[in-house]
Amino acid sequence: MQLPNPTTVATISTLINGKVEGDGHVVITGMNEVHRTNTGDITFVDHKKFHRICVASDCSAIITNEKITTEKPQIIVDNPFSAFCFLLEKFGQKTKPEVVAVNGSFIDKSAKVGESTIIHPGCYIGADVVIGEQCIIYPNVTIQCATIGDRVIIHSGTVVGGDAFYYKKWTQPIPKYEKFKSYGNVVIKEDVEIGSSCSIDRGVTASTIIGAGTKLDNQVMVGHGVHIGKNCLLAAQVGIAGKTTLEDDVILWGQVGVSKNLVLGRGCVVLAKSGVSKNLEPGKTYFGIPAEEARAKWKEMAMARRK
Amino acid sequence: MQLPNPTTVATISTLINGKVEGDGHVVITGMNEVHRTNTGDITFVDHKKFHRICVASDCSAIITNEKITTEKPQIIVDNPFSAFCFLLEKFGQKTKPEVVAVNGSFIDKSAKVGESTIIHPGCYIGADVVIGEQCIIYPNVTIQCATIGDRVIIHSGTVVGGDAFYYKKWTQPIPKYEKFKSYGNVVIKEDVEIGSSCSIDRGVTASTIIGAGTKLDNQVMVGHGVHIGKNCLLAAQVGIAGKTTLEDDVILWGQVGVSKNLVLGRGCVVLAKSGVSKNLEPGKTYFGIPAEEARAKWKEMAMARRK
Amino acid sequence: MQLPNPTTVATISTLINGKVEGDGHVVITGMNEVHRTNTGDITFVDHKKFHRICVASDCSAIITNEKITTEKPQIIVDNPFSAFCFLLEKFGQKTKPEVVAVNGSFIDKSAKVGESTIIHPGCYIGADVVIGEQCIIYPNVTIQCATIGDRVIIHSGTVVGGDAFYYKKWTQPIPKYEKFKSYGNVVIKEDVEIGSSCSIDRGVTASTIIGAGTKLDNQVMVGHGVHIGKNCLLAAQVGIAGKTTLEDDVILWGQVGVSKNLVLGRGCVVLAKSGVSKNLEPGKTYFGIPAEEARAKWKEMAMARRK
Repeated sequence: MQLPNPTTVATISTLINGKVEGDGHVVITGMNEVHRTNTGDITFVDHKKFHRICVASDCSAIITNEKITTEKPQIIVDNPFSAFCFLLEKFGQKTKPEVVAVNGSFIDKSAKVGESTIIHPGCYIGADVVIGEQCIIYPNVTIQCATIGDRVIIHSGTVVGGDAFYYKKWTQPIPKYEKFKSYGNVVIKEDVEIGSSCSIDRGVTASTIIGAGTKLDNQVMVGHGVHIGKNCLLAAQVGIAGKTTLEDDVILWGQVGVSKNLVLGRGCVVLAKSGVSKNLEPGKTYFGIPAEEARAKWKEMAMARRK
Repeated sequence: MQLPNPTTVATISTLINGKVEGDGHVVITGMNEVHRTNTGDITFVDHKKFHRICVASDCSAIITNEKITTEKPQIIVDNPFSAFCFLLEKFGQKTKPEVVAVNGSFIDKSAKVGESTIIHPGCYIGADVVIGEQCIIYPNVTIQCATIGDRVIIHSGTVVGGDAFYYKKWTQPIPKYEKFKSYGNVVIKEDVEIGSSCSIDRGVTASTIIGAGTKLDNQVMVGHGVHIGKNCLLAAQVGIAGKTTLEDDVILWGQVGVSKNLVLGRGCVVLAKSGVSKNLEPGKTYFGIPAEEARAKWKEMAMARRK
Repeated sequence: MQLPNPTTVATISTLINGKVEGDGHVVITGMNEVHRTNTGDITFVDHKKFHRICVASDCSAIITNEKITTEKPQIIVDNPFSAFCFLLEKFGQKTKPEVVAVNGSFIDKSAKVGESTIIHPGCYIGADVVIGEQCIIYPNVTIQCATIGDRVIIHSGTVVGGDAFYYKKWTQPIPKYEKFKSYGNVVIKEDVEIGSSCSIDRGVTASTIIGAGTKLDNQVMVGHGVHIGKNCLLAAQVGIAGKTTLEDDVILWGQVGVSKNLVLGRGCVVLAKSGVSKNLEPGKTYFGIPAEEARAKWKEMAMARRK
């Protein structure tokens, strides 16, 4: 998420009653969660498990509850999660929705729809959505917080731009899950086709991206902040958890599930019903729960049967 | 399902041309299927497999095709299933739907919507639905036969209160499935969040319940009469079959499936893609198809690979 | 797909600049893909893998890029896929959509809806759709290119008649997937019930068929050109890939996946979470990924655990 104006670590620290460790003059231009940072971003970390990845990331500053590095400026606060949420709420875009009825659909006044694009009845196109030219949006589609390229086809019942499934668990004073509100968006590139009743969540602070020419079958679930490359094929009922990256030309067959924060290498293929729990190498074929290289897996299965 | 007025076993027997075994004066206040009975309920049973659970349940009377106990009054009929369906049809609530268009949604005149609740366009809110305060109902949501607490969020495309998938197979005179019509409802407690394109079926005669603070990701399917406790997490594409109970703090990861009529103990965790076919103990972690304790399962898998 | 008028192999050849091999006088009345051909149909083949099945099929002529048989007339072209798509575009029905708002739904002027059928608000009923008598279509359902029998129930959020997930991969001049546009339809017979948020795709050139009395639970995905027999049961989150056939009385439990182009024999049962990758015999019970006969599979699993 970009900030409306560049600011400094010191200024942000004042807003959240923090203590600056390191150079408070560093300029901050955006906010992002640790797996999707760019230079200029401030991020947060509140668990030792992520200290290393956080310091190694492209971020320019860190909100944390203890000093974790001398390489980057940090703002120390008691509760980094809540401080980060407070800043998102403060800086996040809040176009007031103002939908109007058009041909049986509800389209926000701030949305932009390209030439020769057809929006069937029963759709909802939310604030600041941009849709390219020659697209077909079938009936009963919901699109929010999204930028969509030319010649994209979206089938009925699909939901683009829903919130991330992302909560922080508190045990005190009473046990509850606090929602990490979503401020990111969805970017769908040109020539993408998305089947019926798919769910494409928006990023928490960054973008969920579907690359040009990629095709999704029905009932596919794409989690928050996922990056899908060009010309990928995702068969029906595939699910991909948050912030995983699929490089170009990846093929996932029916009902495959992929865990969060992984990288699936270019052109790899995952056979139906597999569960991917670790990074996959480019060009190879995988199978099983957890997914292993298909040839090794088949050999193992044949041996199990022989005995 | 509550009856409109309390009645007696003898009176009900007259309605379905039955023969009373035991005390016909017992007062009946409700009807429920065998897995979800309370004191005062009449239930039915037509298969020996369920005799024991039926007699042991909290029900006050039983419609059956043979005498199965001396502990509770029974009404003997040829076809308990059809007799029960006849009574449901007779006593079931039938508010005549009368929807009006409000801000691009269709809301039944009998529905109640709390203060500061936002219902986006494209929704359908059916007869007798109650929605609490400060809720957000995203576009294209369908809600029927449901009572929803405060601060509940429901994302686009989700369907609350669909019919149970529940049929009786007849082989005579011609093979067919007869539908067990649904007369139950859905109860969603406060602070629940439900993702996009979820399906939450209503109970056949009882309630499907989602406990306070529980969060569902996208494309989750919750069967009829399921009880989910407080502060549970259900990741994307999870499916739970009818009348299963999840105690508090249960976590089901992506694409997990759970069979019907089970109990998953408090705080247990089921890893992604697992299939649960038996009760699970509290606090333990499970994995596999069928799901077993994760540590035992991993050991077994490692041994299979070693050979 | 039927042609508007019968024509000859020679006439079709002229349209696509082809060269006739064999008898150009053979009469052509329809077009279909190779797995769903009838007498009178012309089909296409562009991969050696399908030569045998193509020649053995009921088709009356073949568009191909080399002579493959002396038994049937062929039209030889450089690019059979593109030539076939060109003909589909030329001959395919194109009723111009003209929807009108009726009780909160959008119904095409060319659609026919039977007596005593209820269509709830928020639905879209497209061009040339036919719906029988005494049907219930719940809110927010989308139906296109479909013929639906009497007493059919379709729950909210379901999409009937979406496009096939069917692409041809080109590597030249730039890598891309070319869409095989859908010209087929969906046929749903009498007394079928379909749960919420299901996806029933239409055939590419033929029909997707759901037989009388069959019941689908929520979130079921039925691919293009699938044939489902009578009185089948498909539990929640089942997925069936294109052109597979289920004979009568087949039961698929929750989250089962079935590959394309298979035949599942009459009355066979597939247990929950299984993945079917080959034809199944009638009357047997299957389990596993890939699915095997359940008894053999359980034995194998028990042995693996013992060691």
